[in-house]
Amino acid sequence: MKEYIEANKQRFFDELFSVLRIPSISAKAANKADMRRCAEKLAVLLVEAGADEAQVLSTDGNPVVFGSKIIDPKARTVLVYGHYDVQPPEPLELWRTNPFEPVLGPDPATGAKAIWGRGANDDKGQLFMHIKAFEYLLASGKLKHNVKFLFEGEEEIGSPSLPKWMKENKKMLKADICLVSDTTMISDKVPSINCGMRGLSYLEVKVTGPNKDLHSGHYGGAVANPITTLCEMISSLHDADGRVAVPGFYDKVVELSKKDRAMLARAPFDLKEYKEFLDIEEVKGEKGYTTLERTGIRPCLDVCGIWGGYTGEGAKTVLPSVAHAKISMRLVPNQRSAEITKLFAKHFKKIAPKYVKVEVKECEGGDGFLIPIGSDAYKAASRAMTEVYGIEPVPARGGGSIAVLAEMQKILGIDPLLMGFGLERDTIHSPNESYLLSQFFAGMESIAKFYQYYPSK
Amino acid sequence: MKEYIEANKQRFFDELFSVLRIPSISAKAANKADMRRCAEKLAVLLVEAGADEAQVLSTDGNPVVFGSKIIDPKARTVLVYGHYDVQPPEPLELWRTNPFEPVLGPDPATGAKAIWGRGANDDKGQLFMHIKAFEYLLASGKLKHNVKFLFEGEEEIGSPSLPKWMKENKKMLKADICLVSDTTMISDKVPSINCGMRGLSYLEVKVTGPNKDLHSGHYGGAVANPITTLCEMISSLHDADGRVAVPGFYDKVVELSKKDRAMLARAPFDLKEYKEFLDIEEVKGEKGYTTLERTGIRPCLDVCGIWGGYTGEGAKTVLPSVAHAKISMRLVPNQRSAEITKLFAKHFKKIAPKYVKVEVKECEGGDGFLIPIGSDAYKAASRAMTEVYGIEPVPARGGGSIAVLAEMQKILGIDPLLMGFGLERDTIHSPNESYLLSQFFAGMESIAKFYQYYPSK
Repeated sequence: MKEYIEANKQRFFDELFSVLRIPSISAKAANKADMRRCAEKLAVLLVEAGADEAQVLSTDGNPVVFGSKIIDPKARTVLVYGHYDVQPPEPLELWRTNPFEPVLGPDPATGAKAIWGRGANDDKGQLFMHIKAFEYLLASGKLKHNVKFLFEGEEEIGSPSLPKWMKENKKMLKADICLVSDTTMISDKVPSINCGMRGLSYLEVKVTGPNKDLHSGHYGGAVANPITTLCEMISSLHDADGRVAVPGFYDKVVELSKKDRAMLARAPFDLKEYKEFLDIEEVKGEKGYTTLERTGIRPCLDVCGIWGGYTGEGAKTVLPSVAHAKISMRLVPNQRSAEITKLFAKHFKKIAPKYVKVEVKECEGGDGFLIPIGSDAYKAASRAMTEVYGIEPVPARGGGSIAVLAEMQKILGIDPLLMGFGLERDTIHSPNESYLLSQFFAGMESIAKFYQYYPSK
Repeated sequence: MKEYIEANKQRFFDELFSVLRIPSISAKAANKADMRRCAEKLAVLLVEAGADEAQVLSTDGNPVVFGSKIIDPKARTVLVYGHYDVQPPEPLELWRTNPFEPVLGPDPATGAKAIWGRGANDDKGQLFMHIKAFEYLLASGKLKHNVKFLFEGEEEIGSPSLPKWMKENKKMLKADICLVSDTTMISDKVPSINCGMRGLSYLEVKVTGPNKDLHSGHYGGAVANPITTLCEMISSLHDADGRVAVPGFYDKVVELSKKDRAMLARAPFDLKEYKEFLDIEEVKGEKGYTTLERTGIRPCLDVCGIWGGYTGEGAKTVLPSVAHAKISMRLVPNQRSAEITKLFAKHFKKIAPKYVKVEVKECEGGDGFLIPIGSDAYKAASRAMTEVYGIEPVPARGGGSIAVLAEMQKILGIDPLLMGFGLERDTIHSPNESYLLSQFFAGMESIAKFYQYYPSK
């Protein structure tokens, strides 16, 4: 497909950029209209690429895009999953360019060309590779599988509407494998295939002290400060060994065998480079586990946001009424998100001192999952990537979450295969998200080759 | 002066409201022009009230207003101090009315009329009482003292420019007593006169973890979260007894004698009412001290603001790069603000774990002070308020800080006298600041009577 890419490059950029320009931020109500606009754009691109049909279908939330090409009713069907919604771009002041004005720019570290913009990688850039690999296979008469596309608009907020919609559309979604590019590989020198992802529980907490903001001079020292109290409560959520101190949190965690841990340890990892990339002097995490294990096979708890009191310019002497935080827990098999969310909410309310009131709101959740590595699909992906990268990809465990894929396994009985071409340097979810052109093109090639090696019957 | 108030009420409101409408927020650079506008307005009001002269004078920061009326070079001179700058109004969504569109509204609790708006009390409303008491005394031929007015525009940010300016203008500021209305009394049933105020050290801290915001799935559990770290550091700033855990913090604190504590305990205080007013189940503070002592004679540490990570709508799964907090310490005699600020900064950097970087920025500071209660001025104020309120005011210790008054004692050798007419219910520094009309008028009367009982020679 190399020649095809070379011949159509500029058109690919034009098409992808037209999708990236739409600020399809699922977390923000104000962007509602952008969601449908983005879905419609993708449906058009699918039809232009050669799909028999492509439609924007309503769900209880943002619409999904569904498209299909039936080559042979007896052939195997590949379901391509992706999401067209993106993370909020904030903090805006840290972006080098407008997040929704995509450009081709040099990678700050290496000078290699990359696509810059929110969604360049996660997941508009990655799902776009599938449309173009499909277009190439069809145009060159090489497509032997049936292909279905499912692009949703709520992945970044935990796919609240998709499970119900999948249940109502089981027949339409029937397929043999679900191909997903929404993850990273270890590095562009060390390709990897994800064989599992973590689940997620995301909550927002609110701690209220006095019923109004107070003058910190008149009341300071005599009335509990809700910020200090929230800080104390957050501090108590980890023990001295870096373990999450929510009772019952580890009860169902699957402990890996020595053999499995040894296999994961084969993935190359350079702690010095890792620390340099992040500019930190030391890593920190659960005692007794390596950095890769801490993100791959162990659950964790993070504060994703905190706010309270005066946060503007200068000095305002206030003892505030409320303080808030957003808490995310990454889960591993067999922790159930719904159960962990309940455990956390119960614990957080229990540890609240008498001088404050605590509210806990569930935001998002999803279970983790594992992927069998001996399958036809895994082997086809491995062979495809070996040819493109010249090295056999290693199996790896992703630390992130795609909540809906566990649901898909349960509802549709389809295993996902995670061929992700993102890199750590892409800073997805952060300012200056980008996607290396070399990965963008290697991804398309790998996907096209996957179809070549994945049995069509 | 009662009749004079009755006859001129509407004009008083019009004049005061024209001052309240100017958003003279000293903490915000954007309001720079408003500062001078407000100062000029006040100079005009001073001249209209009968001052010989009133000028807007430049300092290194916001201008001061200086006005004077020399009745008799041999008579005693009263220096009236006030400030025309106000606290930022945020959070705006909690205001019932526009903070800079003053109105007369009913007090939510009692229905009694009050002036609503930022600065209604602190300190535009209170300094305005002095202008009107002066106008009345002059108009009725009763003024026997020389009067000087000094209104500054940086009190809410710690008066950074005034000390230097006072040093350069000692002669012009010469006076026998400095009269200040910028504090509260215990209640309108229990008038009080402040005989001391706390000092202040205000700092901003910044904790940096990784050099960019990270995907909380890819890094969560392996990289220290700066919010969690900041929370842990903040938690460690108090010990189990509610004492500030900064080494050396209490070294110079003056411990009060049993007799002095017993005198302060005479101030009426109802813990049940206090808790109901704030809607809290329990108070919290340093072990071994009462609530009034905790705010009056003991130092404390508060977090006035905290922010970091994603604080918008919905769920963003980010492991943020930085977290910030604003920390205020209220100080008592003989704690020196400059020294405590240094101790805090040193300690906070020392307790920073290796996996984060910590920056500490000084924002504001000032020493506390005590006022002799046997003086002519104290007695005159006490007699004046006894007549107006029908009860002898009790001496009280204010928990707040007016940093510059300690400087004034040192530079000009003038003792302040704090006749404050604010009430707790006024929620100064908070949304819905207001000032009860009954206090506004009782304040004017008390001030006019002060001149009557304070010896003029």
